[in-house]
Amino acid sequence: MRYFEDMKVGQHRDLGSFTFTAELIKAFASQFDPQPFHLDEEEGRKSLFGGLAASGWHVGSVWMKLMVADGQREAADAAARGEKLAMWGPSPGFRDLRWLKPVLAGDTVSYASDVYSLRLSRSRPEWGVMQVRNTGTNQRGELVFSFLASVFVPRRDPQD
Amino acid sequence: MRYFEDMKVGQHRDLGSFTFTAELIKAFASQFDPQPFHLDEEEGRKSLFGGLAASGWHVGSVWMKLMVADGQREAADAAARGEKLAMWGPSPGFRDLRWLKPVLAGDTVSYASDVYSLRLSRSRPEWGVMQVRNTGTNQRGELVFSFLASVFVPRRDPQD
Repeated sequence: MRYFEDMKVGQHRDLGSFTFTAELIKAFASQFDPQPFHLDEEEGRKSLFGGLAASGWHVGSVWMKLMVADGQREAADAAARGEKLAMWGPSPGFRDLRWLKPVLAGDTVSYASDVYSLRLSRSRPEWGVMQVRNTGTNQRGELVFSFLASVFVPRRDPQD
Repeated sequence: MRYFEDMKVGQHRDLGSFTFTAELIKAFASQFDPQPFHLDEEEGRKSLFGGLAASGWHVGSVWMKLMVADGQREAADAAARGEKLAMWGPSPGFRDLRWLKPVLAGDTVSYASDVYSLRLSRSRPEWGVMQVRNTGTNQRGELVFSFLASVFVPRRDPQD
């Protein structure tokens, strides 16, 4: 499971959802993004966002949280079957991150991950390079967050 | 200050620096990125990172923190001069985020921001669009973090 050879373009994975409460929005913002519209309901209402809005970095960090939890669930399932999960390599970065709509207090964002492209690594024959489009969609079905990540994925048999 | 007309390609701004202590790295990771190499020194040493490594989202969130603090200092300086600071608009997103090297416990990252491109907005004549290259450099002068952000910046006189 999760070797390069197991992945297919278009594969979809739901990562779960997260409700951005006012309390969590303010806790993140007071540490990392203390702008008025992230800290105070009234300032949020007066802003372009129209309400207390989560920091974009909060929306991204929650994606990471759900991605890790999903990987840990997958690893536990594999262990229960007596299998070992292939460990993906680090991400060298990502492209075209968009915050498409504000995430306001009370919004629930569902995150998902879709395989966008697959290729062999030129420099490291034991790895493939996968691009994954990650998205967040709110409870009204509106896309609020999107980016394209690159990940190194091990090949099952690099000699093939 | 900080109107579109005041900005020039190549303008450089130091945003300050931040030391990623083991305690802060683990606190962020336990909330948002609970992977072993972000939570435990020994697991970090055994990993590709070679030490307890900060989550990439932590490195990005600290950029936001220093960017906001810098803007607040600038606003206070402007107020002391009896001026009003032009408020920049929201960021629609960014491109080509790279985590180039691990940020390990004890590393101090200095963040900076360089104006990369300037153009008028086609759809909104009262705004310009500025691309800014944001970077983080460690205490050994190694670039560890980079991305290209787009920001809407108000024009001083949209009739010009």
